[in-house]
Amino acid sequence: MSAADTLVKDLQTALPHGRVVVDADVARSLSRDQAAGAPVGEPAAVVRARSTEEVRQVVEICLRHRTPVVARGAGTGLSGGANAVDGCVVLSLEAMSEILEINPLERLAVVQPGVVNDDLRAAVAEHGLWYPPDPASSPWSTLGGNVATNAGGLCCVKYGVTREYVLQLEVVTGSAEVVRIGRRTAKGVAGYDLVSLLVGSEGTLGIVTEITVRLRGLPSAPITVAGFFPSLVAAGVAVRAVGAAGITPSALELMDRYCLRAVDDWKQMGLTDAGDVLLLARVDDPEPTGTALADEIVELFRASGAHWAERSTDAAEGEALFAARRLAYPALERLGPVITEDVCVPKENVPEMLTRIEALAQQHDVHIANIAHAGDGNLHPLIIGPPDDDADQWRRIHAAFDGILDAALDLGGTITGEHGVGLLKRGGLVNELSPTVMGLHRAIKEALDPAGILNPGKMFE
Amino acid sequence: MSAADTLVKDLQTALPHGRVVVDADVARSLSRDQAAGAPVGEPAAVVRARSTEEVRQVVEICLRHRTPVVARGAGTGLSGGANAVDGCVVLSLEAMSEILEINPLERLAVVQPGVVNDDLRAAVAEHGLWYPPDPASSPWSTLGGNVATNAGGLCCVKYGVTREYVLQLEVVTGSAEVVRIGRRTAKGVAGYDLVSLLVGSEGTLGIVTEITVRLRGLPSAPITVAGFFPSLVAAGVAVRAVGAAGITPSALELMDRYCLRAVDDWKQMGLTDAGDVLLLARVDDPEPTGTALADEIVELFRASGAHWAERSTDAAEGEALFAARRLAYPALERLGPVITEDVCVPKENVPEMLTRIEALAQQHDVHIANIAHAGDGNLHPLIIGPPDDDADQWRRIHAAFDGILDAALDLGGTITGEHGVGLLKRGGLVNELSPTVMGLHRAIKEALDPAGILNPGKMFE
Repeated sequence: MSAADTLVKDLQTALPHGRVVVDADVARSLSRDQAAGAPVGEPAAVVRARSTEEVRQVVEICLRHRTPVVARGAGTGLSGGANAVDGCVVLSLEAMSEILEINPLERLAVVQPGVVNDDLRAAVAEHGLWYPPDPASSPWSTLGGNVATNAGGLCCVKYGVTREYVLQLEVVTGSAEVVRIGRRTAKGVAGYDLVSLLVGSEGTLGIVTEITVRLRGLPSAPITVAGFFPSLVAAGVAVRAVGAAGITPSALELMDRYCLRAVDDWKQMGLTDAGDVLLLARVDDPEPTGTALADEIVELFRASGAHWAERSTDAAEGEALFAARRLAYPALERLGPVITEDVCVPKENVPEMLTRIEALAQQHDVHIANIAHAGDGNLHPLIIGPPDDDADQWRRIHAAFDGILDAALDLGGTITGEHGVGLLKRGGLVNELSPTVMGLHRAIKEALDPAGILNPGKMFE
Repeated sequence: MSAADTLVKDLQTALPHGRVVVDADVARSLSRDQAAGAPVGEPAAVVRARSTEEVRQVVEICLRHRTPVVARGAGTGLSGGANAVDGCVVLSLEAMSEILEINPLERLAVVQPGVVNDDLRAAVAEHGLWYPPDPASSPWSTLGGNVATNAGGLCCVKYGVTREYVLQLEVVTGSAEVVRIGRRTAKGVAGYDLVSLLVGSEGTLGIVTEITVRLRGLPSAPITVAGFFPSLVAAGVAVRAVGAAGITPSALELMDRYCLRAVDDWKQMGLTDAGDVLLLARVDDPEPTGTALADEIVELFRASGAHWAERSTDAAEGEALFAARRLAYPALERLGPVITEDVCVPKENVPEMLTRIEALAQQHDVHIANIAHAGDGNLHPLIIGPPDDDADQWRRIHAAFDGILDAALDLGGTITGEHGVGLLKRGGLVNELSPTVMGLHRAIKEALDPAGILNPGKMFE
């Protein structure tokens, strides 16, 4: 029997029937995330675990076989972090999808890693509570994946990212031990912050099997402000003006003319008639503060050069204004595969970063559309790939991709605001962090995963 | 020449004149923090550094001599974390006290570790900005110490603790290398969260030489609500009622009858005539929400059994109501040395925890007063020690101290909400964390401080 066969046999013996996936198509579908252009390995086995103990057993068996374990949730990641490596066990946690507790007094929820983000939101909303982190993938992505990547989203500009909501984790370590780290209390400083270390570690330091998250009360119904601007520079001035006025909107999103045109070509919304750049702001402060702030943002948009700026007068209108934002990505995908970039720069450098992205598009002769969480300086340049296997065009796309990372670093930013390093940005990470800091990463990886079996080769070699 | 003499000579040769403290009284004053009853060692040398390069040189020399380095700020800690260990170099960072940058657009400040918390607040307030974490020591404690202990405070109930405000750190590692970790951008997921790991690590993983903190806009002027209750249970009901109503006050503080009596005995404020337990809430929402929430809290206090509950009508009145809270600690110190406990339990267990503390006081025949950040379940039982060296009473005090830690763990809480482990709670930490989690701590310590010279023996052996 080959080593891989022995591994599969050991897994099948240890786990209940049906846990080891035998269907080749299903196995293939669980071997990659949604990163365009990242390498995908061939797994030795794919397992769908249903309990912490099953996860522990898988890690124990992999430890014995010195086999890599690649944990995954829904596979909505955009950096290749959940892609299989050759000979690995892919460990899907999607079937661990129970909400174990919702505690309105302590304002926390305890969930298994396979719970879908929007399902948690819906469940806690029944108690008047809210789990803020809202990645665009929230209808599909799981809390386990959100924790592994420290997912962000639209409302982070006011409410912070996943890490700020994780109180406690149950984790299976690289030594196949089950540990509980963090706490359920509002405060606590007993020992090192292992929870924050695990959040965003992309499956390289432990496999999360239970998550306790902090909740907030539901905010007031949001008011949306839309503004159409003649140029990226004018929109950038407006973003600065909102910040300088001390206003913290609950979302501040930008779409450039390429996105607007793609949506228009598809849905004939007439967006491009209104202007070149759309800014969408939301405020969710209680009334009358909410309306007053929305009006102030309208004035700031106009003073910054908006052709047109208005606030929504009811929830339906607000939703309609955000519809274009949600349509941008699928509209662009109609034109070809979309390579999603994700850089974050200091807010004051957003206009300069957008200018450099335009120059890179010209220089490398590629199409780059921009959506951005402008209020955080988190930009998502979307590079439109060729529908076919045009090697020269892919070379130019990769050159533009790397150019964007370099520009972000040059402007005091980071190579990844919220999507993670995975496989696509390992080179970028080395450029961002000093050799000494990379050494600290390796030392921590070695400390928590001495056998090196947890998602090896992701984030860094 | 003795090893200690060689060490001092090496330090004096490497550093500018005056950095190595020669005055024995000054050296003694820099050898301990404010923890009552924690052991204090005899340092080989005390250094006041003035730059990152000087800190690096001290660590390099200590590395060569295999000498422990105990970094310290103002020494206001309450767990012995900054106490000298025998033969160590105490490294004071108080003289590194420059505010290097205040950036209103990015809403961040960059400071040296010796900047006093209140000095930073005052400086950023001139720009309409606010650094929220407000430990009771804020008039004296330094940002470096706040970072080392992940300091909390009154407003954490709404605004979070120090860790949530630290964006970037410059750190001298245990290998005498200067590294920059974290970022200046609003978001970022490039690599492990080394910043959160360093925050709260009590000087055991690195020495922080520069801190970039996130700022907020100044909140609205607060409104204070005071309520006097006949019992701890009634006050506990009120705290729950505020939480259940979905109100997040910017402070929610409790003082028990021992504290009220101590203040009355000193200042004759007549507090004990009004009730046994005082709850103080603050709201800082913009008007008219602020007043509406304050009125709602008044009603909730009354419905929970308050003899008397009112809200302040102006800032001076609000300040006056909080004066008793600030007087509690010095009032108790008039009665003897105060051993400050610091436990945090789930909010729903606050009344039960207070009941158990009363029982422990009776059982061990010691005086325990309680102040609490009741809104987060963070209790500070204050054990009043004897003015003299009464060995039997100290034994009983330590038994009560340990009993409180055990009770907190039994109620799902933690042995330290915000003061840290230091020397006083090493036993408690072992009780709170599993052996495997303690093993992860040791592995991380070993990874980041291979020579074991950074504040050895603090937090854990």
